[in-house]
Amino acid sequence: MAESMQGLKRTHRCGELSAVNVGETVTIMGWVQKNRNKGGLVFTDVRDRSGIIQVVCEEGTTEPALIEKAASLRSEYVVAIVGKVARRSGAVNDKIATGEIEVIPSELRILSEAMTPPFPIEENSKTKEEIRLKYRYLDLRRPDLQRNLKMKSQVMTLTRQYFAEEGFLEVETPMLGKTTPEGARDYLVPSRVHPGSFYGLPQSPQLYKQLLMCSGVDRYIQIARCFRDEDLRADRQPEFTQIDMELSFVDVDDVIDVNERYLKKLFREVLDVEVQLPIQRMTWQEAMDRFGSDKPDLRFGMELTDVSEVVKDCGFGVFTAALENGGSVRGINAKGQGGMPRKKIDKLTAFVKDYGAKGLAYVAIQEDGTVKSSFAKFMTEEQMQALIAAMNGEAGDLLLFAADKNKVVWDSLGALRIELAKQLELLDKNEYRFVWITEFPLLEWSEEQNRFVAMHHPFTMPMEEDLQYIESDPGRVRAKAYDIVLNGNEIGGGSVRIFQDDIQEKMFHALGFTDEQAYSQFGFLLDAFKYGVPPHAGLAYGLDRLVMLMAKQDSIRDVIAFPKIKDASCLMTEAPTPADTKQLEELGLEVVTEEK
Amino acid sequence: MAESMQGLKRTHRCGELSAVNVGETVTIMGWVQKNRNKGGLVFTDVRDRSGIIQVVCEEGTTEPALIEKAASLRSEYVVAIVGKVARRSGAVNDKIATGEIEVIPSELRILSEAMTPPFPIEENSKTKEEIRLKYRYLDLRRPDLQRNLKMKSQVMTLTRQYFAEEGFLEVETPMLGKTTPEGARDYLVPSRVHPGSFYGLPQSPQLYKQLLMCSGVDRYIQIARCFRDEDLRADRQPEFTQIDMELSFVDVDDVIDVNERYLKKLFREVLDVEVQLPIQRMTWQEAMDRFGSDKPDLRFGMELTDVSEVVKDCGFGVFTAALENGGSVRGINAKGQGGMPRKKIDKLTAFVKDYGAKGLAYVAIQEDGTVKSSFAKFMTEEQMQALIAAMNGEAGDLLLFAADKNKVVWDSLGALRIELAKQLELLDKNEYRFVWITEFPLLEWSEEQNRFVAMHHPFTMPMEEDLQYIESDPGRVRAKAYDIVLNGNEIGGGSVRIFQDDIQEKMFHALGFTDEQAYSQFGFLLDAFKYGVPPHAGLAYGLDRLVMLMAKQDSIRDVIAFPKIKDASCLMTEAPTPADTKQLEELGLEVVTEEK
Repeated sequence: MAESMQGLKRTHRCGELSAVNVGETVTIMGWVQKNRNKGGLVFTDVRDRSGIIQVVCEEGTTEPALIEKAASLRSEYVVAIVGKVARRSGAVNDKIATGEIEVIPSELRILSEAMTPPFPIEENSKTKEEIRLKYRYLDLRRPDLQRNLKMKSQVMTLTRQYFAEEGFLEVETPMLGKTTPEGARDYLVPSRVHPGSFYGLPQSPQLYKQLLMCSGVDRYIQIARCFRDEDLRADRQPEFTQIDMELSFVDVDDVIDVNERYLKKLFREVLDVEVQLPIQRMTWQEAMDRFGSDKPDLRFGMELTDVSEVVKDCGFGVFTAALENGGSVRGINAKGQGGMPRKKIDKLTAFVKDYGAKGLAYVAIQEDGTVKSSFAKFMTEEQMQALIAAMNGEAGDLLLFAADKNKVVWDSLGALRIELAKQLELLDKNEYRFVWITEFPLLEWSEEQNRFVAMHHPFTMPMEEDLQYIESDPGRVRAKAYDIVLNGNEIGGGSVRIFQDDIQEKMFHALGFTDEQAYSQFGFLLDAFKYGVPPHAGLAYGLDRLVMLMAKQDSIRDVIAFPKIKDASCLMTEAPTPADTKQLEELGLEVVTEEK
Repeated sequence: MAESMQGLKRTHRCGELSAVNVGETVTIMGWVQKNRNKGGLVFTDVRDRSGIIQVVCEEGTTEPALIEKAASLRSEYVVAIVGKVARRSGAVNDKIATGEIEVIPSELRILSEAMTPPFPIEENSKTKEEIRLKYRYLDLRRPDLQRNLKMKSQVMTLTRQYFAEEGFLEVETPMLGKTTPEGARDYLVPSRVHPGSFYGLPQSPQLYKQLLMCSGVDRYIQIARCFRDEDLRADRQPEFTQIDMELSFVDVDDVIDVNERYLKKLFREVLDVEVQLPIQRMTWQEAMDRFGSDKPDLRFGMELTDVSEVVKDCGFGVFTAALENGGSVRGINAKGQGGMPRKKIDKLTAFVKDYGAKGLAYVAIQEDGTVKSSFAKFMTEEQMQALIAAMNGEAGDLLLFAADKNKVVWDSLGALRIELAKQLELLDKNEYRFVWITEFPLLEWSEEQNRFVAMHHPFTMPMEEDLQYIESDPGRVRAKAYDIVLNGNEIGGGSVRIFQDDIQEKMFHALGFTDEQAYSQFGFLLDAFKYGVPPHAGLAYGLDRLVMLMAKQDSIRDVIAFPKIKDASCLMTEAPTPADTKQLEELGLEVVTEEK
């Protein structure tokens, strides 16, 4: 039976009480964390968002009926307690903030009884994630997830405050928008008023924010929900949140400046971490050459070395064939790993195959200076020594090589570098290394579509000095695009936008669009550009990823209140669910039986 | 040809310049508002978000090439200008903030040329709304819409800041949720991974925020996008925004308190208007009896008077029949309108028919005290005088009566009261009259569905003293629900929620749900309630409506950047659009040709 809280008013949250309150009569409300009887005493830990306080009933002091009621409490009951704050008669508990005090109750009401939860409400649950997600409302009671929710709220509050102070206006853009076939797959929303027609949920507010610049909004910010109907990877969600911004009358440096000061403020206020400004910048080319990744983790070395020149005349066909096909041979030096068992090296070889590499060539330099290698027999001693020298190889090192097209070599060694760092525990979660990656290629070739596709999006401005190649050699054109990378994760990215219709036209042509195709998809933006458009640029952060890194979590699901699982369903609500016939009729739709 | 802004950096926004800057060299960027040649001078008004500044080129002083370029400028060109701030040589313009000064340019770049816009960029456009919405990016350049966007941004910023200071956490709830048949019609989102299944876009985050209370979040806030697939009325949009909150361990007064202080802060900081606290409270019954509306406009009187007792024995069958059928006879006194022409009274009669009234009975008291009336012949002189006395009728007054079921009488006279206030210009947009409406009926009878439906929603707590009637006489039960009303508009509403499963069960039964139906729709909430749920209550504001009233606008479309029209389409993007076959195939859907 639930009692009413009528007549009671909470005076403090549990964790807000301290020795300062000793002697005061307080009213607290919360959940029973645990309850135990011990020699005529009943100890009840009461928990709320702020922390835990111990409530103590003692035979002789406390009324018998109250003791009996306290003794009947079970975990997760919701209670209201009126009582006096006292110093603990027993030992001080250093583990909790209220460990010096306890509450001696004069009134106890049971506001809600509770069944035994399917898993304990405690830090670092070992319960399977499926169970936790089904009972997410219980999972969210756990202190780690409570902290994550609080941090995310704090990040959103600080973000809006900072950008408001910098003159940004928050503008809401539509969720029910126009669907466009370019880019990832849209979620569609059928229209009832126009049967057979559909809205698209936004993958980002890109077009709207550019239109807002055409409208003279000047500086726009929105913490915007975005949607992508893609097959989910470990850290993707069908809906996710971007911190989305756009600025007029600016160039790359202006966007970087306002965002560096943002990151500095954010990390200082939330984590007490000082971000050194300016944040390092690195071109895409340098990032690929040195780290095999456009989101390099700079917390450790183990950089890539291009040894193509060194091996170009050697007798190892794998190397020379790669070079003849226009590729490269590159290696990384796993310092001190020369003694790695052959089995482990084989596992690394299997690992890089996921990234397209055909294999991994290795040189293990033994402590005595001799060499074990998968390809020594194809090389002269001089060639091997030259290779080792190029790799700064020393006794005890393990040198690992990939030979293929550049993209395959970068992807494989870039991933291998991270994998080794994990195995060797080189990654410090308390270190935050930022880097801006700049001068991305404007376009990349899609084998699948047999055409160039935009690396960022079709509105990204080419670098002025490369504009001359956009028709003759599109792959060579670099873009005024930039990503902000933290510890090997892209946390945000953006670009200066095209604001001249002649350049935009060339861009669409480079993407293989006819004028008609471009107009049918983006006509309203092209129209807008005819009426006076300011130079503009923008950036968007992935909020969930950013908070995940700040909260030192491994999955974005841990910083989203109600996440979905890989098949895009919700284990708690069981969404999505079949629609009823009436609803479908109204939408003019029919579910087609799947052909197997 | 667009020139680049490279090498230039904006130093000020146009409207930020003042006499303080005289003598400084500044760089401004913006749109040409207008450009005129006059006796060897070229005057160019440059506009940005902050305002307008005059730029002046003069023969003899300014380089000829620059004068020529300035003279070539047309409206809405985007320009960058470097120049010196000087006091105006001509007359000071009191109408603009920068009217004392002008800029004498040393450099002018044309960043973007512009075609002539389809309508002038000016305050209070008289252009048809359809044209303005098609070119919304131009419409948003107009100063009134710019002010609206700024005010909405300011309201959102202040809202989040206030609630964060009050201990609320911002938590994002899913957009891709479970569709429920209860309430308004959901927008559906087909699932590709689960063909034939659908998500529902949220009509509000109601269930999620209650779950967050079960999770111990304690105080939740979200500025949340919500969706309703209803036929659109003048001030409805398929997507709209709620300031949504929920609090644990509170009762009605706590919710009202935190929100009154919010409204006070908001109106002070945005409008410099002082809201007197506490805000008046009125029960639903009193609001209906006095104003015929649960959202009474208190800026004027003209209250309803129940004259049922006075007329119960008169000979006018319309009155007595209404009373015999359990209805009432009520009137309003339009002071000083006794001389209203018969034609105008007929129009008012037609007006109330839209609200279900069969007619409008009137008594026009002439200046000489004689009476013109539609029903005088059915009454004795004494009866008529008693009626006039009950209505406080005086010479020159017009008394208007409706007789029917209570609901029809209230609706008709409530609407008539507002209509008369509009005609008589009694509504002052600069006055802000707030009132809390409390003690709503828990349920209302739906003729259409032949069952009780929830007036707020199925989770609203009955008042304790009425709980005894929930099975025997459900219509009599009042709810712990409250609306906040401003100038006759419901700007927000909420309730204390049921947190006891036995009461929730009774509520579902009162709504005609079987246990199975309730469980299939709301099972996860009912499950959550089994594991310890705190007493909780919440409220949600309609952000668009609130800002509309604050900005003194007549339509919420004027405070939404990219609104939709009545058929839920967007005139700018032309969304919704037909989907291509491949997309539909992936979703396992087929468009059915409509049967006419």
